[in-house]
Parts: sequence; structure tokens; C-alpha cells
Amino acid sequence: MNRTRHTAPIALVLAAMAGLAALAPTEAVGQDAARPKRRAAREEKPVELTPGQVADLTRIANERKLTVDDLVAAAKTYTPSGRHDEYILFSSGGQSGQVFVIGVPSMRLLRSIAVFTPESWQGYGFSGPEDPVRERLRINGKMVDWGDTHHPALSETKGDYDGKFLFIGDKANARMAVIDLRDFETKQIVKNPLTVSDHGAAFVTPDTEYVIEGGQYATVFGYGYAPIEDYQKSYRGMVTFWKFDRARGRIDVSASFAIELPPYWQDLADSGKAASDGLIFVNSFNSEMATGGIESGNPPFEAGVSRRDTDYLQIIDWRKAEAAFKAGKAEMVNGFPVIRMKESVAGGFLHLAPEPKSPHGVDVSPDGKHIVVAGKLDPHVTVYGSDLIRKAIADKTFSGNDDYGVPILKFDAVKEAQVELGLGPLHTQFDDKGYAYTSLFLDSAVARWTLGGSAAAAPEGPWKLVTKTPVQYNIGHLCAAEGDTVSPDGRYLIAMNKWAVDRFFPTGPLLPQNFQLVDISAPGTTMPVLYDSPVGVGEPHYCQMIKADKLKPFTVYPEVGWNPHTMAPDPNAPRKGKEGIVREGSRVLVNMTAIRSHFTPEHVTVNEGDTVTWRITAVETTQDATHGFCIGGYNINLSLEPGEYAEFSFVADKPGTYPYYCTEFCSALHLEMMGYLHIKPKGDARADAASGATP
Amino acid sequence: MNRTRHTAPIALVLAAMAGLAALAPTEAVGQDAARPKRRAAREEKPVELTPGQVADLTRIANERKLTVDDLVAAAKTYTPSGRHDEYILFSSGGQSGQVFVIGVPSMRLLRSIAVFTPESWQGYGFSGPEDPVRERLRINGKMVDWGDTHHPALSETKGDYDGKFLFIGDKANARMAVIDLRDFETKQIVKNPLTVSDHGAAFVTPDTEYVIEGGQYATVFGYGYAPIEDYQKSYRGMVTFWKFDRARGRIDVSASFAIELPPYWQDLADSGKAASDGLIFVNSFNSEMATGGIESGNPPFEAGVSRRDTDYLQIIDWRKAEAAFKAGKAEMVNGFPVIRMKESVAGGFLHLAPEPKSPHGVDVSPDGKHIVVAGKLDPHVTVYGSDLIRKAIADKTFSGNDDYGVPILKFDAVKEAQVELGLGPLHTQFDDKGYAYTSLFLDSAVARWTLGGSAAAAPEGPWKLVTKTPVQYNIGHLCAAEGDTVSPDGRYLIAMNKWAVDRFFPTGPLLPQNFQLVDISAPGTTMPVLYDSPVGVGEPHYCQMIKADKLKPFTVYPEVGWNPHTMAPDPNAPRKGKEGIVREGSRVLVNMTAIRSHFTPEHVTVNEGDTVTWRITAVETTQDATHGFCIGGYNINLSLEPGEYAEFSFVADKPGTYPYYCTEFCSALHLEMMGYLHIKPKGDARADAASGATP
Repeated sequence: MNRTRHTAPIALVLAAMAGLAALAPTEAVGQDAARPKRRAAREEKPVELTPGQVADLTRIANERKLTVDDLVAAAKTYTPSGRHDEYILFSSGGQSGQVFVIGVPSMRLLRSIAVFTPESWQGYGFSGPEDPVRERLRINGKMVDWGDTHHPALSETKGDYDGKFLFIGDKANARMAVIDLRDFETKQIVKNPLTVSDHGAAFVTPDTEYVIEGGQYATVFGYGYAPIEDYQKSYRGMVTFWKFDRARGRIDVSASFAIELPPYWQDLADSGKAASDGLIFVNSFNSEMATGGIESGNPPFEAGVSRRDTDYLQIIDWRKAEAAFKAGKAEMVNGFPVIRMKESVAGGFLHLAPEPKSPHGVDVSPDGKHIVVAGKLDPHVTVYGSDLIRKAIADKTFSGNDDYGVPILKFDAVKEAQVELGLGPLHTQFDDKGYAYTSLFLDSAVARWTLGGSAAAAPEGPWKLVTKTPVQYNIGHLCAAEGDTVSPDGRYLIAMNKWAVDRFFPTGPLLPQNFQLVDISAPGTTMPVLYDSPVGVGEPHYCQMIKADKLKPFTVYPEVGWNPHTMAPDPNAPRKGKEGIVREGSRVLVNMTAIRSHFTPEHVTVNEGDTVTWRITAVETTQDATHGFCIGGYNINLSLEPGEYAEFSFVADKPGTYPYYCTEFCSALHLEMMGYLHIKPKGDARADAASGATP
Repeated sequence: MNRTRHTAPIALVLAAMAGLAALAPTEAVGQDAARPKRRAAREEKPVELTPGQVADLTRIANERKLTVDDLVAAAKTYTPSGRHDEYILFSSGGQSGQVFVIGVPSMRLLRSIAVFTPESWQGYGFSGPEDPVRERLRINGKMVDWGDTHHPALSETKGDYDGKFLFIGDKANARMAVIDLRDFETKQIVKNPLTVSDHGAAFVTPDTEYVIEGGQYATVFGYGYAPIEDYQKSYRGMVTFWKFDRARGRIDVSASFAIELPPYWQDLADSGKAASDGLIFVNSFNSEMATGGIESGNPPFEAGVSRRDTDYLQIIDWRKAEAAFKAGKAEMVNGFPVIRMKESVAGGFLHLAPEPKSPHGVDVSPDGKHIVVAGKLDPHVTVYGSDLIRKAIADKTFSGNDDYGVPILKFDAVKEAQVELGLGPLHTQFDDKGYAYTSLFLDSAVARWTLGGSAAAAPEGPWKLVTKTPVQYNIGHLCAAEGDTVSPDGRYLIAMNKWAVDRFFPTGPLLPQNFQLVDISAPGTTMPVLYDSPVGVGEPHYCQMIKADKLKPFTVYPEVGWNPHTMAPDPNAPRKGKEGIVREGSRVLVNMTAIRSHFTPEHVTVNEGDTVTWRITAVETTQDATHGFCIGGYNINLSLEPGEYAEFSFVADKPGTYPYYCTEFCSALHLEMMGYLHIKPKGDARADAASGATP
């Protein structure tokens, strides 16, 4: 056979596979004469374009029909191999149930984080019938394995993102999730016991004392029933204050409480900060308490809830509410403490302020002094002054009470300004130069306008529309760099456009959303769109953007045998050399390790009907040396990141011979990283013997 | 109240929402004085860079530390707003169970296609307890709601991608899926009744007569059991030929069959084409028939399956196999026809050819004359001539038989060339200039080399390594534009790197893969990496790249009331004006329509315990006017694309008041697009009355 064998490299490969060496992926195994040098370290001396290079760029631009603006935008967004993005965007995945992590300015999707929907790449929800993720997803005993993630909120310290945790709500099922940003994994999901849907979730108080979940559609608390005719009497809105225990990295349900609100539909929320620290703002629509019924000739909800000129901004003093809760003023509803409206009114910590009808976003300026409500059906943003609000509350400058006895602050007493921006203002973000940015859904534009009062800084003067940048199309939320903090960065803004229509090659009738990156670094009227980024893995609703260097993720788990659920080494984690199979009656315990490129053991033999508990430690310590582990037909797939320990259990109820294998392409001998689960049928003598042979 | 009201635009908005107008998203509703003009149509006259523009570009490059090469790469990949990508990449999603659709050269993820894993954004698997997707995912009665998608195959006509269908296999569970590229949705999943895992799936014959699924780890056919000591006797490999019925767009299981193979581990496969039309090539590893057992002191699989110098390329004449199947030469195993090895040998349609040990890819050149096997543990690619193979078969130029009596072609009689490329050759693709491209896993490089013989065209002469481009890191498969067809395009190549390590900001211990776009348009040694694209939603295994203009997707469904499962209008689809609720005993039928921005009806009242069937038609005809529909707590979320009809059923077993709402941000009054499902508790008199009131 006329073939050269290179035994040396193969031997090295096998040695590496046998776990003798934890090869860094860039270390070559052996050498090859024909092999070129690796790409040299990047030369980053200043560029000076030669005429030839300009000609090259011009030729490429003309071949690809690029404009000069396109070349500039390309230069502003292109991120070379190995260069890390400066900002990290945490985006809700909408009704995909997930969170997306996107780099800015490259707009590349770095990873998805599974939250409310099982996802097999991450091994999230695929550890057998007793999977803890799936158990956590049950509502009233029913599996609800999806969510409509809406508002991600980064944990804050003194009103600034601290890069430690991310919270996100499930609008469809009124749940809240906690993600630990050390490993970007979901650690906790809590179900709101009061209601079925939420919207303003999550928002955090400036030191993340509480994670706030505002309601959406009024229901009868605790999955109760009342006919729609009893709407005003029996249906209720709410805001829930989930107490966050930072040391444990978990919501402490036992220290959490809710405030009953009128059956207006709570919508977005924001925490006061700095000057408005201690207040929570929750706007609402349907103060009409319309009940729809198009099928009976009634005005449909869309018209009924838009009849009145004004709805109500709900203003809550959360420290007073917390004190009332601690003083036992809450009532248990479906096992959860709720402060009734009359207690909130009596305690003086719940007030309403009129706002133009059916608004969407309510957003607090960086200094906390200006609360901006976007009109949605009104062409203005309405700005409330936090000092004015505090004074009106103190002076009881009320125009009356609503039907539930909640005092209404006089609009003119709390309103600081109104700025006409255009059609469909939805949501506002801030920069470091005294500008605010509001999305205009119907205009399909981002408006830049100037703050006034204490925040006046922009040269155009206070409360003025400066410019609008068209976006494609129908922008919902927007997000500026650190735009929800006390110290926004400016520079980049994301327009989260709900319709892409013709922007991308059509992928059937279901199209992606379009995130557009807008350059807000220059003041004045220059505010170009730099990049269109399709999001075709869900309908992202809202996002937050953090400076990347604030995040300190693990690159590998700190110790081999790490349990990501407890975020600590697990005493049950199998150790190298201690692998094996232990049988007690019909219960079988498998202790396994995984390393490039084998599982130990490679055969597991059990009897039909056995209950099998299987523990695996990935004894890898090299970054990115992730293994998977799956058993075909048994719905098991794990992601075993370096150092990770995982456990699953199942009943071996279907006999046969099942390969298990590594589902991450981990080495040149990845395909060989496998073994067999033998499930011997009842009454098979050969099988009995084989089974008995396991140690 | 000092606030301007703009009644005109609001009235228009409401009119639009009431369905009076199907507004295109770019049509403004009303006008606003301060509103700027929309972005003017792009000026695409040739660029000539002025000195000022060059200075701008230079300044940006230096601020961002870009090199001249970076500026060139940016110009080659940047895709302006509204410009469509030239190529569409269909990538497996690996153990995410999905398929990803990516634009080239922008490398933007256009959308995910849910295949083996339920996905709520697409409403895939979230239509209640009788969801047809979930039913289809069951194996042996057990829910297996994930997959390890491996090899996507576009349907072909005369060996060229025709843009009609996409097939993809599930390595973990040996399943095959059919995706219709009119709406990019999964239409069918078939389970292989013989085996547990596959690998070479899918590959198609040149006119998509068959979709081929090659096995992976040998098992006992039909989920049988045999102890590992009986490996050689009882374990088997296989290749399955799924008959594709193009008119129905479905695999015809009744006309499909399999061929039994020795218990070598089948790996990748490719169809012959043109000169080799009629042949199927399936390579293998573990011709050693090693059975591992590291826990008992045996060599682990990784070593045991690599002991011998050679494995076997399995060569099948599928037309002869098909004739044998039709002639009744197959035997039923677990209800599926299998041609046993002795029949295949007797029929002269199964042969082996030695190949360097443990190869990965087997790839047929565009003219069909050269079959390239990548060595993996051998630094060469080995090229077999299809004429040599046919002659050796005709002349019975055998070196003997394997243990199962399958004749082995003499290596020297079928080998055309060997080309030394470097360490870890895995997979080969082709261009239009006579070059082949092979991924080198251990070298972390893409090798360009020249074809010879009938395909010799490159200036460097036949069978020569031309250059290697380093990639980051550990490349698995690669994919060139139309690279699996009879007429590849060249231009672009995707290096599918399995390890990203330091390329992107770390998102915890679990990192994305790194797809690198390589520019293969220039001949010779110039082959730069243009772009790094993280894939953080699964571990993509292989992809195919098609010219975008070959795809003719629906932009909306052709008729209102379209059923995507049948790809036809559905007689059950509710029509506008015919909505309502029909009760028969404890069975309730809801007929609903959805349009911006209301559902009709807005209230559905049922009794606890009722069985509810719910039918919805999205009566939209505007591109991208997609609605969602969810019921909180009942695990229901639909994606209702323009014209789509959907149906679901559930038992109303948990009483309460459940909002249903649209989960796609469809209009300014999207939040108002909702209604209430009232499930009245047993024995609630008010509820009985309300329920009785439904028409």
C-alpha cells in the first residue's frame, strides 16, 4: 500500500486523548513540513492608507455597491478575529423564553441563555424525567416549558450595573428568573402566586434590594374566577417586590411581598434612583377598566382601553411599603403577602398621577430627577419632576381619588415638561451628554431630544427635539449603553425594530426582528444607523447594555466537581480513579468521569426496570474543553463544561443497547468518546450474568 | 391640563387597528411637522474617496486599532441595511436540535428552524397536550424532545441544489427530518426503526430519489439487547435509504429500506454524482470491532478503534440495492425492510475499499470522478477514482473478503492519489477552479490543494498542496458555496471551528463555536479569513451554502386559512365574520380570527373540565404581519404568520381567568390585542350562567 504513515503524530494524538496532556487547542501536535506559520500577532501600528490600498478599498466598495457611508459604518463595526466587543447586550428573547447575549458594536450573538424554555445545547432541561429545570417550570402542576421574556434587568450597586446578576420576567406566565453572570446560567425561577401575566418585569431598586415585577392584564388573584361583569370588583392589578439575597444569589420568596393595585393594566415600570431613590414608577393603561367583547358588539379592547384622555402613573414609596409589610399589614392571598390598597393609601405610599392615555415606557433620568413617560397614542413625552412629585405628595396636592380611593396627584403640580416628538413614542433612554432618546413606533424613528432642568447639558437648550433617525421598521424598545444607570455611557444605541419586512432575505413568512445599531457618539443632528442585525431566534422585547469589563465570568469552573446549581464543589462528584457502578437492589449508581476523549466507565449494564442515578464529572480544566453527554432514546443531553458536575436519574424501562457519546466536538478522537448502556431485558440469562459482573 | 392632543393621528391608528386598513409598516399614519424625511433611496453611483473621506476612514481605523486588512475584510463583508445576502447557509444546530439559516457574506443569523426541539417563538410544539410536533418526537412512546442535528442536505435536481427542501438527521436518536423551504418549517420526522444513533445523515442522491441515513455506533437492530461479548455476532451497522416523494414533500416510509452493514461504525457518507452516479460512499471507523472497557483495563474506545492501519470505505450501488428491495430480497426487522449482507454480496452491490484508519469525510468531486477521504489520524487525503472503482468491481480485483464475506477492493487498484496536507484532515469541499479544500482539525487550518486527473484545472499542477490558512480553532467541517454540487461557485468558504477559546468575550464556561468566513475567490496562496462569527445557540456540525436566488420562499401564506402542516388551505379555518363559540356537551369549539389589533372573540367562557378545541386564522395578508397567541399557564403559544391557520386542544382542568394575548409586537396597539379565557369552577352559579351565555 503506497501510503505514508506518520506514526509519531498519531501516537501523540492518542496520548493526548488518553488524558496524559491537557493540550491547549493552539498547541500543535507534531509538525508538518508543509505547514505555514500561524497568523502572526496583529500589527497595530497606525494605519496610513497608500494610494494602492485606497484603490483596493474603492474597487471592493464599487463591486459590492457600497457607499462611503457604508465604508465608514463597516469600519465602525467590524471587529477583527480575537478582538472582544466593548459592550455586552443582554436581550430578552421574547416568546422564545430565552435571553440572548450580543456583542456591541459587532452585533454578533455570543450565546443564548436558556431560561423558561428547555434547550438541549446547554443541557438545560434534558437530564431525564426528574430534571430540576423542568420541575421548576411547572405551574399548578402543569408543565409550562416556555416563557415570554420581556425585560432583562442587570443587578445594580448604587444605581450602576455591577455585572453580577441578570433578572428577567415571563410575561405569559408571571414568573421571574435569576441568572448568575459568573456562568451565564439560570439559577432560579419563581412563580408569582397572584397573577397570570406580568409586564414590567424585571426592574431593580438601585442596590438590588428588590426585583420588581409589575402586572399586566388584571385577573382574579390566585387563579381565581369571576365573570367579566365583576371586573371592577374582583379583578386586580399588582406590583410584586421580590427580595433579592445577593449573598445567596437567589430571590428570597419568604421576604417578598406584593401591593394590590386597581384593575388598570400595569405596564412598564422603573425604579427611582439618586434624587428619586425610594420611589417606584409603574404606568398603566386601561384605567377605563374596559372589558372588551367585540363578539357581542362591544368596543374591542384596543378601542375601549383608549377611550379616556389619561391613564395613571402609579407611584409607590417602596421603603414605606416594605415597612408596612414588615409591620404585618399584608394579607395572605394564595400563600403570598399582599398589601391591600386601603393599607397603601392609609400608609401614604401609593399615589397616582395622570398621564397621557395608554403610555408605554416610564424611564427615570440618570440623576433621578426626571421621570419620562412615553405617550404611545400621544405625540409627546411627558416629564414629571421627582421634586414636584415629592412636594405634591407632602402637600397632598390631589385632584381627587380614583374609584379605589387612591389619591391622584394634580397633573400640573407634578408635570415638569412635555416634548412633542412624533407618532408612537414608546420608550426612552439616556446618554452622558444631556440627551434623551425615545423610540417612535409609528414614525419608525429614534428621536433625540434634550433634557432640561437639573439635567440640562445639551447645547440645543432644554426640552427640545433635536433630530430623528429613521429606523427599519416599527421600533419597540431601544437601549443605550448603560442607559438605565446613574451614569450612562452614550456612544451606542440599539433600535429594537419589530418588523424587518424587506431588510433581509426572506426566510419564509416568519421573519426576524431587526436590531439596528445607532451611533450616538456625536452630538447634534448626526445620529447614523451603523448596522442591521437580524434576530431570528425569538422576538426580543427589551435589552440592557453593559460595559464588557464590568463582567467577570468564570472561564472554567473554579474547581473540578463544581455543581452549577449550588455554585460550589459537590461532594457527590465522582473523582478520577473512583469511577464505578454500585448496585443496591434495583437501584444503580453510576460514577463517571469525562475527559478528552473517553468516558470512564465505557460500559454500563443494568436490568430492565432498574432506577439508575448517573453522576458525571468533567475533569477538564482547559477553557472551552466542554463535553456533552447524551443517551439516545432516553432524552438525556448534558453540557459538561470544564470542571462541571452533573447528575441525572431515570428508570431503565426500555431494554436495548444504547450508545452514549460526547455531543461537543472536543478533540480529533471526539467520535470515539462513547460507551454503551446495556439494558438487559427481564429474564435474559446472558443479561443477568453481564449485569452481575458490574462491580 | 397643558397638553396638546393629536386626535387625528390617534383616530387613524384606531381605525387601522380595527382592521379597516392593512397598513404597510412603512406607511406613516398621519404627519408630524418635526418629522424628518425617511432615508432617501441609496445612491449607488461609483464611490470615489476624497482625501477627507480617506482621512475619516483612517482616523476610525486608528481609533479602533484596525489594520488595512481589517478595512478590506470589513468592506468585503459589510452588508448595508436592506441589502440581501448573496448566499444562504443552512447550518445544523448540533445538539440544540435545530437548523440555523445564516446569510453570507454578512454571517448574520437570519433565523432558526425548529426541528427536533420544541421552540416557542415559532410556536413549534406549544399547541397543547395533543401537539402534533410533540407526538412526532416520541420514540418507543417516550418523549425525546431534542436532537443532535448533524448533516443538512439540500434537495438536488441533477446534482445541483434546487432550493426546495432541506433534510437533516438526528445523530442522537437516529431520526430524519424534512423541512419545506417554502416556509422554512419542519414538515416530517421519521424515526429509524433499526438503530439508536446515526451520523451520515442526511445525504441525497443527485435527483433526491433517496435521502440517505448512515449509521454511527453499531447496535442490535430494533432496540434489541445483546451483551458486548456478542458484538461481532449481534451488533450491526446500516445505511437507510429513505424514499423521497417530491410531489408530497414527504419521505415515503413504505418505499424505504435499509442495508445491513458490518458492525464497523459508519461515519460520513456522500452520493456519487455524474461519473459516479448510482454509487453511495460511506466510510467507517472501528473496523477493529473494538469494544472498549477502560473500566476493566481494556484499551478505551479511542485507542481500540484506532489500532489498525486501515478501515473500510463502504461502496454501495443503490440502484441495484433498490432493485433487490423491490424484488423482495429484504427481510423485515422491527417492521422495516433490511437487505442482509449476504444478499448485498450476492447481488454485487456492496464492496469495501481500504482507507487510512478512522477517516472522517468522504466527498465526491463535482465531476463525480474523484472520491476524497480525509485521513483524520493520517496526514493525507486519499483520492479514489470512480472509474477505477467501477473497473475493480467489474474485474473482481479483490484483496479478499472481510469477516462478513464482503469483498474488499484492492487499495492500489482504486486509489488515484494521496496528498499530504497536515494533521487531522476531516472534510473536503470543492470550488469552480479545480481546487479542493480540506479542514485540518489538529493543525487548525484550511488546506487548499489541487485536484488532478479529469478535474485538473488549477495552475499549480495536479494533487498538490497549495496553501493553508490558519483558523481559530480546531476546525471540524467546512463548507464552500454550492460546494457539494456538480457546479460549485467558489468565492466563500465557512470554516466551522469547534473551539473559540479567546476569540470572543467569554460568556461563562460555555463558549460559542466560531464560524470563520474565508475568501476563496483568488487563486493561489491568497485565502484570507474575512470574518469571525460566533455561534452560541448550539454546536453546529455541518452546513450547506446555496445561492440565495435559488430559494423561492413564501413571503406570506398563499391563501388566508393556510395550514402549514398540509401546505393547503384548511376547510376548518375560521373565516372573518364567522367567529364564535360552539358547545356540544362538554366539548367546546372556538372559532377565532386574528388581525391587527384584536382577536375575535375577546372572551371565551368554558366550564372546568371541558375539552376545548380552538381554531384561529390570522386574516393578515401583509408581509411580516405575524401574530402570536398564547394562553398563560396552559403552555400554549402559537406563531400565526400572515394567512396561517392553527388549531389546538386542551382540557380546561384548572379554573380561573386567563388572559390570552398576541406575543408578536404587531402594532402600536399590540398590548391591547388580548382577551380572556374564563374557566368557571365546577358548581359556580355565576360561572354557569356566563358559560350558558356563549352563543
